[in-house]
Amino acid sequence: MLDHPNADYRILTAADVPAYLAGLPAIAGRLGGQPADWTCQDVADGNLNSVFLVDGPAGGLCVKQALPYVRVAGESWPMDVSRAFFEFSYGQRIAPFVGRLAPAIHHFDAAQFIIVMEKLSPHIILRRAMIAGEHHPRVPEDVADYVAAASFYTSDLAAPFESKAADQAIFARNTALQRISVDLVFTDPYAVSERNRITAPLEAWAASFRADIDLKAAVTRARLTYLTRAQSLLHGDLHSGSIMVTQAETRVIDGEFALVGPSGFDIGNFIAHYVMAWYAKPFHESGATSVGVFRDHLAADIVLFWDRFEARFLSHWRGFAGAADGLPASHFSGPAGAARAETLRRAYVADLFRDALMFMACKIIRRVLGFAQIADFLVITDEAVRALPQAAALAFARSVLLYPERYGDIAAIVAALPRFDAAGLDPAVTRGE
Amino acid sequence: MLDHPNADYRILTAADVPAYLAGLPAIAGRLGGQPADWTCQDVADGNLNSVFLVDGPAGGLCVKQALPYVRVAGESWPMDVSRAFFEFSYGQRIAPFVGRLAPAIHHFDAAQFIIVMEKLSPHIILRRAMIAGEHHPRVPEDVADYVAAASFYTSDLAAPFESKAADQAIFARNTALQRISVDLVFTDPYAVSERNRITAPLEAWAASFRADIDLKAAVTRARLTYLTRAQSLLHGDLHSGSIMVTQAETRVIDGEFALVGPSGFDIGNFIAHYVMAWYAKPFHESGATSVGVFRDHLAADIVLFWDRFEARFLSHWRGFAGAADGLPASHFSGPAGAARAETLRRAYVADLFRDALMFMACKIIRRVLGFAQIADFLVITDEAVRALPQAAALAFARSVLLYPERYGDIAAIVAALPRFDAAGLDPAVTRGE
Ligand SMILES: Nc1ncnc2c1ncn2[C@@H]1O[C@H](COP(=O)(O)OP(=O)(O)O)[C@@H](O)[C@H]1O
Ligand SMILES: Nc1ncnc2c1ncn2[C@@H]1O[C@H](COP(=O)(O)OP(=O)(O)O)[C@@H](O)[C@H]1O
Repeated sequence: MLDHPNADYRILTAADVPAYLAGLPAIAGRLGGQPADWTCQDVADGNLNSVFLVDGPAGGLCVKQALPYVRVAGESWPMDVSRAFFEFSYGQRIAPFVGRLAPAIHHFDAAQFIIVMEKLSPHIILRRAMIAGEHHPRVPEDVADYVAAASFYTSDLAAPFESKAADQAIFARNTALQRISVDLVFTDPYAVSERNRITAPLEAWAASFRADIDLKAAVTRARLTYLTRAQSLLHGDLHSGSIMVTQAETRVIDGEFALVGPSGFDIGNFIAHYVMAWYAKPFHESGATSVGVFRDHLAADIVLFWDRFEARFLSHWRGFAGAADGLPASHFSGPAGAARAETLRRAYVADLFRDALMFMACKIIRRVLGFAQIADFLVITDEAVRALPQAAALAFARSVLLYPERYGDIAAIVAALPRFDAAGLDPAVTRGE
Repeated sequence: MLDHPNADYRILTAADVPAYLAGLPAIAGRLGGQPADWTCQDVADGNLNSVFLVDGPAGGLCVKQALPYVRVAGESWPMDVSRAFFEFSYGQRIAPFVGRLAPAIHHFDAAQFIIVMEKLSPHIILRRAMIAGEHHPRVPEDVADYVAAASFYTSDLAAPFESKAADQAIFARNTALQRISVDLVFTDPYAVSERNRITAPLEAWAASFRADIDLKAAVTRARLTYLTRAQSLLHGDLHSGSIMVTQAETRVIDGEFALVGPSGFDIGNFIAHYVMAWYAKPFHESGATSVGVFRDHLAADIVLFWDRFEARFLSHWRGFAGAADGLPASHFSGPAGAARAETLRRAYVADLFRDALMFMACKIIRRVLGFAQIADFLVITDEAVRALPQAAALAFARSVLLYPERYGDIAAIVAALPRFDAAGLDPAVTRGE
């Protein structure tokens, strides 16, 4: 049944794509020429979907189809194809706020669960760039702008509450992918699960996390926050594998995990992948710069990202003059009102920071002890070596979850990174740090 | 257009009801006899809808129709009739958890926006009983059982998150009535609004609330909590006017404000109306008992209600053995796990208590300074007199919003009631109390 979401649905192969696009003349016009002139390449490297890049004499297109199962796992793990609808709906909803920071979406096929969008070229996935030691200095600020605009303008701070309620009515149905987040991020890494893929030398770390009642209590708070704090429309999977870059441009792709949830979730996820890149870097290329210099870039980027997010979010809010229910202007008029409104804004952003750190830590742990591992670590082929930066990342994440009061600002986060660099394979050694 | 939600819709009068029910033979069977044997009475005393009570030889029915406007305001205030759909959906959803604490629902007419339900007889509205000095000792515990079951079983604590997500997909569309709550509860009372109906001698209180930046900051937090804390399916309007009672039975009616929101909202609303009844009581009948004794009943009922809610909520949770995402059993096995799980449960309930007090205070203020006034005060015809218990209620509510740390348990709430009894018409006198 899942193989046939509807009578018309069929799984596209690279050979089918030109004929498919020929059936959409308005869109295929962007390719120029005739179907015979088009080349099509299967580039799926994500976990879930088919992705084809098509080139014609006049330009390129990207064709993404949701499969009725998880691509990397195969047909044994069925997955609702309507995730393509949610990715499309998310893209439509945030386009006015993020502009060129997301690819242009040209078409959605509701029967085939296909999105046709702008082909990003010569953009590459940020994660690969990081692993290769290529630094992209625009990324932190571009992604900060993206998250600040999306999380402000889809919240109750920037609109009558009916606007977010309409998003909830739609995205509350995106449960198939949220089930993945709930299980793989917040639950499996702290339990014995056959889905977990643990680097063998990390077995002691995994066992200590499974036994760590304080850590699991902190994760319970994080999971409940994820499930109940309905602040804004989120991307839901905003890591370095969902960002495509050139030196001049940044694009956020792959919004199929979209949900109305805690704004700190996207923020924390993005930072988590910079942290993991920082720990992995000594085992990678570092390009033209030394490892130390590249790490300094990454640490500086984390600070830049948060500072820019905070500044942009506050400036959207301060400049907002429309009707909104979050902080009604009528309650905060006059100089005293303006001063208090500013206090409330800063308190709101401080809450986002705390949430972001909590989610950052959960995202690090799930990438080390859970199902969906990341290339930053996997490219280190020797498990005995790979376990070292992974252990450091775990030790750092645990510290943030257990001792949040030590991490009061973004400077404290980057200052802490080197402290866990040599955490090692015995989880007890750094337990109180 | 609003007068005609669809081509079939027409506003029912008492004269139309027998013919209408005759068209639903399965339901009309409960009345017995023939339409000619049925009597129909228009009993609408709520703010929004038409309500008819129909009696036949074998039994009675209640027929409630949503009008395309607010009944008390008339056609100048249009109101989406789909609120009947949400009231029906809410009733269906909570029926398995609350059983006989809600009326049985027999039929929903999606074209006429009519609910046909059990006629409650000889039940009367709790508010009227309170004003008349009739004490109904079962009510606090029955309503506590209702709220505990509804708020636990519709939360992520008692089900996979998909269950609450399905409720969100439905109830996020109930925006027409949530707009009323957002405006009338959280916004209008702190601003100049032509909808506010302020007892003349309270003008100084109203002005002081409009100018009180600390109070409005606290209300901002309450409003944001209402808008973003998606914990469970709520009744949304759970006050003494939505509860029908006999000495033996309690029934909660009128769930048309249903939303997925903070569980503390229903709790706080219920307590708010006991508090207002307490302040109003010296100006009412007190039945067979003295005013002092009746007040002691009300204060004891507030404590009973909270204690019972807490006990029931915790016992549902402790006894829960199904699959749920809020607090996965796999993370808290063994004696240490069980102990920590209990700590987390108590912390959760402590958060509900804090939220409940915040909402209680907001609900008191909106009933004194806002549009929808309550009979408890309105039956005191002399405004100069009415203003006194209203001022006391305002002073109490302000204290709870400004100094929440003084109200750490339910005993502190009832102990504080007499402190504000003589608050008087000058809001400055009790400002720091
Ligand atoms: N618009 C695009 N232009 C060019 N390449 C793209 C585009 N969208 C996706 N890709 C490529 O396809 C890969 C998988 O896409 P992604 O959206 O991450 O899929 P998944 O949902 O399966 O994770 C990306 O890593 C990237 O290499
Ligand atoms: N099931 C019922 N049985 C008997 N009387 C009812 C029933 N439901 C409502 N009523 C009466 O009708 C009045 C208005 O009903 P309510 O549901 O509160 O309407 P509204 O939504 O307009 O506030 C109630 O105060 C009560 O007197």
